[in-house]
Amino acid sequence: MRILLLNQRAFMATPLILRSVARRASLSFFSSSAFKWEGGVSMVQGASRGIGLEFVKQLLEKNEKGHVVATCRNPDSATGLLSLKNKFSERLSIQKLDLTLESTIEACANCIRNKFGSLNLLINASGILSIPDVLQPETTLSRVEKSSLLLAYEVNAVGPILVIKHMWPLLKVGGHSQTKRDVAIVANLSARVGSIGDNRLGGWHSYRSSKAALNQLTKTVSVEFARKKDPIICILLHPGTVDTDLSRPFQRNVPEGKLFTKEFSVQKLLGIINKAKSHDNGKFFAWDGQEIPW
Amino acid sequence: MRILLLNQRAFMATPLILRSVARRASLSFFSSSAFKWEGGVSMVQGASRGIGLEFVKQLLEKNEKGHVVATCRNPDSATGLLSLKNKFSERLSIQKLDLTLESTIEACANCIRNKFGSLNLLINASGILSIPDVLQPETTLSRVEKSSLLLAYEVNAVGPILVIKHMWPLLKVGGHSQTKRDVAIVANLSARVGSIGDNRLGGWHSYRSSKAALNQLTKTVSVEFARKKDPIICILLHPGTVDTDLSRPFQRNVPEGKLFTKEFSVQKLLGIINKAKSHDNGKFFAWDGQEIPW
Repeated sequence: MRILLLNQRAFMATPLILRSVARRASLSFFSSSAFKWEGGVSMVQGASRGIGLEFVKQLLEKNEKGHVVATCRNPDSATGLLSLKNKFSERLSIQKLDLTLESTIEACANCIRNKFGSLNLLINASGILSIPDVLQPETTLSRVEKSSLLLAYEVNAVGPILVIKHMWPLLKVGGHSQTKRDVAIVANLSARVGSIGDNRLGGWHSYRSSKAALNQLTKTVSVEFARKKDPIICILLHPGTVDTDLSRPFQRNVPEGKLFTKEFSVQKLLGIINKAKSHDNGKFFAWDGQEIPW
Repeated sequence: MRILLLNQRAFMATPLILRSVARRASLSFFSSSAFKWEGGVSMVQGASRGIGLEFVKQLLEKNEKGHVVATCRNPDSATGLLSLKNKFSERLSIQKLDLTLESTIEACANCIRNKFGSLNLLINASGILSIPDVLQPETTLSRVEKSSLLLAYEVNAVGPILVIKHMWPLLKVGGHSQTKRDVAIVANLSARVGSIGDNRLGGWHSYRSSKAALNQLTKTVSVEFARKKDPIICILLHPGTVDTDLSRPFQRNVPEGKLFTKEFSVQKLLGIINKAKSHDNGKFFAWDGQEIPW
């Protein structure tokens, strides 16, 4: 304890430029493993299909370097990921992660810690809107069921936050390492219908409230990262209405030209992620870069 | 079915003024029981202590007429309510209602239907922030637990919405009846810390996200009431920091003069409720009448 105090005093007496060098040296000591992974380590949670799978694809195809950890509930049946693994065997790891089981999140964090020691980008891409015979977007208050509200909340809000909780130490290391970005980034897939201020149509109680809660949790986490000067920012993304299994039953009323392909939406979202700076921490962006009201 | 169609056609062919008279007559037929309860029927959910109990007290003491249904989990041990019952035996009903058991909400709605047939005001006053050894407001992401997130969501967001769901038919009748107000009112106790836009301190993940979800659910319900032209409005209220059991462990940092008595806060909130008009539907007000951002 005394040595630490003496060291700290000596450190404070050092000129600013030397202190900066010392800090970098100390960081490279603690995060040496991070520097090994040129191009960075990205994790996509909820990667077996839809927008998540497309994120994995573009992160691999559009960059010459960089490793991707793709997670899903059942890796063995994730055909899209397995086919990417054939092509990018060195750069893609597929990990089992079930958002509703915190032990699998923790196990996944341990795997990444052991293999890479750092994380530069975390994309929480999973989300539920409807499951036949289990969860149906509500058209009226009379159809609101407790079980649906709790299920949507557990998967869409609680799960992503638990993932950030367990990846936090790895993101801290990743944020200090040398990628193109200044900081590590957490991007949570939200949705415009989660906006309270923009809610003009009503309905979809479970989905809307779970996404509003996700927005609040992400904002809360972003405040802590900023206060602690962690080199991590959190952003929320609205992908637009994208032609995926999630939106398929509800595409009837989408205006012409407003139903996006996965390729288009993810390209736009990766553009936002790649340009994100510290001052974007805690913000909610649509696919076109416009901020969405809470 | 055929008769209904004929009647409907005949109705549509009637001049507007006559249709209006017919509507009033039809309403007074269906809601005749509502007119019996001069001064209206108010329900306060979560009424055994704190702000809820104070609402019951002021609704009884500050009005000469009007009936109050006070609900809580354990009526037998609700000493505050029982003492009010001694004084206002004719105007106060105490009902058992446990927010986490939908069957008790339904049973309570049936009791009110049988006894009064209508409801003019519903105040959802319950809320949890901390329970020793069960739920503790989180000071950091590392301490966020799934069980806490789910419990806060169930009690602070899901519960109040299920109460509105079951009281909806009674509120429709109440909104058409003759009280001082144009419409029936649902007032949900929210909190400024539930505001995402106003979140500058972080922490309290479970409480914050459950209140943001409550805000979204209330807004969603308000949109449906407006679209269906139901004579009901929903508002969200921030009571300020009030000296109750809920806030007691967290009063240390409250600036001087900003810790309100229950009496003061509820007086202010009842002022907002009594002045609320249709254009306030779906809004979020602080104790001083200022709107709070989402």
